[in-house]
Amino acid sequence: MPLVGVGDVSKRILLGRKLRSSQLGETLLSKRIALPVFASDALSSVAYAPDEVFIMLSLAGASAYVWSWKIGIAVAVVMLTVVASYRQNVHAYPSGGGDYEVATVNLGPNAGITVASALLVDYVLTVAVSISSGVQNAASAIGFINGHEATVATILVIVLAAMNLRGVRESGTFFAIPTYGFMVAILGMGAFGIIQDAAGTLHPVESASLTVVPDADHQGTLTQVALIFLLARAFSSGCAALTGVEAISNGVPAFRRPKSRNAATTLLLLGGIAVTMLMSIMLLANRMGLKYVDPGDVGRLRDSSGNPLPASYEQHTVVAQLSRAVFHDFPPGFYFVVAMTGIILVLAANTAFNGFPVLGSILARDGFAPRALGSRGDRLAYSNGILFLAILAIILIQAFDAQTTRLIQLYIVGVFVSFNLSQLGMIRHWTRHLKTEKDPAARRRMHRSRLINTFGLGMTAVVFVIVLLTKFLAGAWIAILAMVFFYALMRGIRKHYDRVEEELAAGDEDKVMPTRVHAMVLVSKLHKPTLRALAFARATRPNTLEAVTVSIDDESTARLLQEWDDRNFDLPLKVLHSPYRELVRPVVEYASAIRKANPRGVVAVYIPEYVVGRWWEQLLHNQTALRLKGRLLFTPGVMVISVPYQLRSSIEHKPEDWVRPSYRDGVSSGRGRQIGR
Amino acid sequence: MPLVGVGDVSKRILLGRKLRSSQLGETLLSKRIALPVFASDALSSVAYAPDEVFIMLSLAGASAYVWSWKIGIAVAVVMLTVVASYRQNVHAYPSGGGDYEVATVNLGPNAGITVASALLVDYVLTVAVSISSGVQNAASAIGFINGHEATVATILVIVLAAMNLRGVRESGTFFAIPTYGFMVAILGMGAFGIIQDAAGTLHPVESASLTVVPDADHQGTLTQVALIFLLARAFSSGCAALTGVEAISNGVPAFRRPKSRNAATTLLLLGGIAVTMLMSIMLLANRMGLKYVDPGDVGRLRDSSGNPLPASYEQHTVVAQLSRAVFHDFPPGFYFVVAMTGIILVLAANTAFNGFPVLGSILARDGFAPRALGSRGDRLAYSNGILFLAILAIILIQAFDAQTTRLIQLYIVGVFVSFNLSQLGMIRHWTRHLKTEKDPAARRRMHRSRLINTFGLGMTAVVFVIVLLTKFLAGAWIAILAMVFFYALMRGIRKHYDRVEEELAAGDEDKVMPTRVHAMVLVSKLHKPTLRALAFARATRPNTLEAVTVSIDDESTARLLQEWDDRNFDLPLKVLHSPYRELVRPVVEYASAIRKANPRGVVAVYIPEYVVGRWWEQLLHNQTALRLKGRLLFTPGVMVISVPYQLRSSIEHKPEDWVRPSYRDGVSSGRGRQIGR
Repeated sequence: MPLVGVGDVSKRILLGRKLRSSQLGETLLSKRIALPVFASDALSSVAYAPDEVFIMLSLAGASAYVWSWKIGIAVAVVMLTVVASYRQNVHAYPSGGGDYEVATVNLGPNAGITVASALLVDYVLTVAVSISSGVQNAASAIGFINGHEATVATILVIVLAAMNLRGVRESGTFFAIPTYGFMVAILGMGAFGIIQDAAGTLHPVESASLTVVPDADHQGTLTQVALIFLLARAFSSGCAALTGVEAISNGVPAFRRPKSRNAATTLLLLGGIAVTMLMSIMLLANRMGLKYVDPGDVGRLRDSSGNPLPASYEQHTVVAQLSRAVFHDFPPGFYFVVAMTGIILVLAANTAFNGFPVLGSILARDGFAPRALGSRGDRLAYSNGILFLAILAIILIQAFDAQTTRLIQLYIVGVFVSFNLSQLGMIRHWTRHLKTEKDPAARRRMHRSRLINTFGLGMTAVVFVIVLLTKFLAGAWIAILAMVFFYALMRGIRKHYDRVEEELAAGDEDKVMPTRVHAMVLVSKLHKPTLRALAFARATRPNTLEAVTVSIDDESTARLLQEWDDRNFDLPLKVLHSPYRELVRPVVEYASAIRKANPRGVVAVYIPEYVVGRWWEQLLHNQTALRLKGRLLFTPGVMVISVPYQLRSSIEHKPEDWVRPSYRDGVSSGRGRQIGR
Repeated sequence: MPLVGVGDVSKRILLGRKLRSSQLGETLLSKRIALPVFASDALSSVAYAPDEVFIMLSLAGASAYVWSWKIGIAVAVVMLTVVASYRQNVHAYPSGGGDYEVATVNLGPNAGITVASALLVDYVLTVAVSISSGVQNAASAIGFINGHEATVATILVIVLAAMNLRGVRESGTFFAIPTYGFMVAILGMGAFGIIQDAAGTLHPVESASLTVVPDADHQGTLTQVALIFLLARAFSSGCAALTGVEAISNGVPAFRRPKSRNAATTLLLLGGIAVTMLMSIMLLANRMGLKYVDPGDVGRLRDSSGNPLPASYEQHTVVAQLSRAVFHDFPPGFYFVVAMTGIILVLAANTAFNGFPVLGSILARDGFAPRALGSRGDRLAYSNGILFLAILAIILIQAFDAQTTRLIQLYIVGVFVSFNLSQLGMIRHWTRHLKTEKDPAARRRMHRSRLINTFGLGMTAVVFVIVLLTKFLAGAWIAILAMVFFYALMRGIRKHYDRVEEELAAGDEDKVMPTRVHAMVLVSKLHKPTLRALAFARATRPNTLEAVTVSIDDESTARLLQEWDDRNFDLPLKVLHSPYRELVRPVVEYASAIRKANPRGVVAVYIPEYVVGRWWEQLLHNQTALRLKGRLLFTPGVMVISVPYQLRSSIEHKPEDWVRPSYRDGVSSGRGRQIGR
């Protein structure tokens, strides 16, 4: 159709050629590639999780920083527990449904869509937080980004969405190098810093000489309760490091065989690496005297004599400060670390772009999301889901001005909703399987798995309560509200599909054939399309055949009638008068009237159309046929027959996706790989 | 169709109920109403034309103001000449084609579309200039508009467009009061001022004590050439007062009978009133010591001791300054004048909203504009043209920051292009008619008319050259460029329509009937719509009938085949395999193949569809049928049959314009006027 055509062309230009179904196999990921693709989210969070811990502790002044590495250890313990739990998940549910599938199968569909709501919200937040933090890191090295963070972040989201619309595989290879680069950068910096520390040559960071004024609520000596609450807040902010762990469990189908084992191994790898990175950053920051406050509250930083800092002072991110000090005599080291951190954070958002559309298509398959999300796009990517994700993330980035600390408040609650429901589901899973399993070895394994999941549930439940208590008012309520909205939406959609399906269920009475066919051919001019429609209508030998025209002005109708007579058609031309100068209504009403007179017959309305190829030609020709067809669909007992006449331009300028891929390949792809049929 | 439905609903909410063709008569305008509707543009220009004259003269300092009333007289003479000329036009061409029709009939289609291009550009500028000037006037009384002129102007354009989408008649009554109010305000102010002057109690205006520094090019004593050029610039700026005179000649069909005479009388009235207003403003301004410079160049104003004015100084418009001084002891008088001026300027833009869509529909009728512009919208207004005009005007307002003085530079050249071509055409018209006319009285009248038009042509030709010389570099080139663009566009569109018509011209060979009908019913599920499509297809008794399904995954295809067998259909279900998971391409290719095997037959593709009513339901159902139909139109020898199945929601939530107006009336209109059929 005209409008589709335009979209298709631009889509094609942006996305390149499409992939064949059997090529899906080619897009499967090895562990080497899967680690960067799916683990980049979890790994990258070590770039902002420590910052958040220091920001929270700084509320009570720099003295509270003595707690930082203990909080780091607590986060690491939770992280390893969750990794151990999810290793059970990927073995038991390798289909990529992840937490959603686990919850649905074991706890019922309502738990399933609760998880789905949480995941949807978190995917959006992953993009928003990662990109925002990446831009913030970039601003530490590239001064002119300062003040334009939201704009830069928005552009990055758009670029990422476009890349993902091109398909998973290219993204995978593309993202591998920077992810490994990030590991090398952070672990290298950590190792180098620890060596310097041992040698006594470790430099202090730029903020080492500063002091931190406690905020209004934390002046003076803290009460026990206040201290515990502060530590709880710091801990739950640190749990941002856990986000993204579940991504692998949603991505199992993208792994090479044996999918589950490869995914489990990748999970373990990622857990180990993430914990090591996190702890080295916490440790170094402590040793190097870092002072770090909320970027929106830099005024609480003072110089060594207690005076306010100059207005031009810019607080750089933790990673930037550490690397600048560690590599104080080797600037390329600093730039490498900051560049890799910035890039990995942007790429972490890619995890969401990989996971979100998969979840969306699963939800669509189960009738909880619009079916349009379920259709694989041209390039095996689920285009609609990618676009949806990008738009929501951009809205969040703009609403929170790309400030990581504010976005983080919304982030963590959703992750723990799915952690908890997933572990609960897994316990039920093992319990159910234990009822039927006889083999003692298998039973042992199941018992062990259940134990791990139970421990995981206990741990994540405690963390969930802590997160809820400390984050609810700070922003988590927005995320929870969004989850409730998605939950209601998904239930509503499912209800609608169920109702439609019920209404459409066919019985034997639906096979009854209409007794007669009353055909009418719509005539506006006597050109080739009309004659063709008349000929085609005749060929179907209807019981009644008539030509019908709508009279808008008398003069042209008289001319048409004259020409009709001149051409000696052996059927009458019926004139419908249109007091409102409408073309559509008189036809619809006439068709209804005929049908009413003969309720067991069917009215066949033949609409001659001519087809042009170029988009601007389509603008130039009346869309009346389209509107008429649309309206006639609402008329019972009518069928609408388009008789197209193809103008030359429609043959020369066919819509792009009409051209066969095998032909397109030779033209538009430089890869030299032919796709046969 | 789904998408149309959504638009329809929102359109209906915005625009109210639609009008019947025979109601067109009701929207005809009496002189009393036509004057404000069509003359508001020409009248309102006296609100900015004097300002422009004073701005131009001020380039040489306040001493040049001695020329102002002479320039006023020159403008008045041109105005009356043009009015006299156009009185001939409305008699000779009462159909509303105005200058376009005069030029086309007498000088050929190229002259016609030249005029049309000029008019199109000028309609846009009328909106932009009038609204901008109106906002500027409002800012003289309402301080907080200062600095937000472009935003306020944009909002006003949107409001005006919405009002016009509701139809001419309501606009007419609505606009009458303020237009008459404006006449009373300006003429009253003039009379009151002149009385005060005679009594010796006339107050000086606020800028009377100021001095004006000549701009860099006009320092010292002016040469003869420089003075003449300055006066020419002032004069051509003053000719802004002439814009809008032609509006009546485009609006003749909207007058009550006798249309032409009423239009001619209205023209004369408008000319007289406009000249009186213009001269009273020029006169008063002179007597009251007004100093007025380009609002973008207020720095050239100095206080009586020659010192610069404070930065906070705001230069008010000429009308605002005059009325504040005339009504210095009666502030309501000042507010009345300024309010009426602001309102009339906004309403003047309405002239364009009345004229532009009429011209657009005439161009569409002649094949120079997209046919969509030719269809009357629901409410007898030509909706597409109104939207187009509003969008272009908003672009101009934003581009020139709603600065009247900068927009005026683009404005006047187009008016005089159509003045000239129109008068030239009228001369030819009379000459041609004189060849056949025998009646001496009629011949005398024609001779007189030709004389008037010849004089008009001479006058407007001179002014055109002056305008071109003085305005070209100042901005008229933009308007001319736009005209060239519209000209080329219109010729291109016409060429396209001609080519299509030629290609579509039918011969007798087009009546040949296809030898056989090969029908295929597309099956995705075995629900009611599919069964209905099968029954309908059977009822047409095709030569071949088969059911076809596209297999995307083997499992669901197997299920479908099983169900097919269970239901005992006595025809086979053919499975098309789709390696690219596409639904559309395999069907299109299969249909092509069948047609290729039997080139003299026709392939009938039956597509079962179910129809939902609510817009959000339409989002939830796959648009595959729509896309498939679109693509099949490009396939020769195929006809596409939609067999709709109406779900309950489609009956409960029919598209709004489906409901009959007679029924709608009782519900949605509070006017108590019933529309029968």
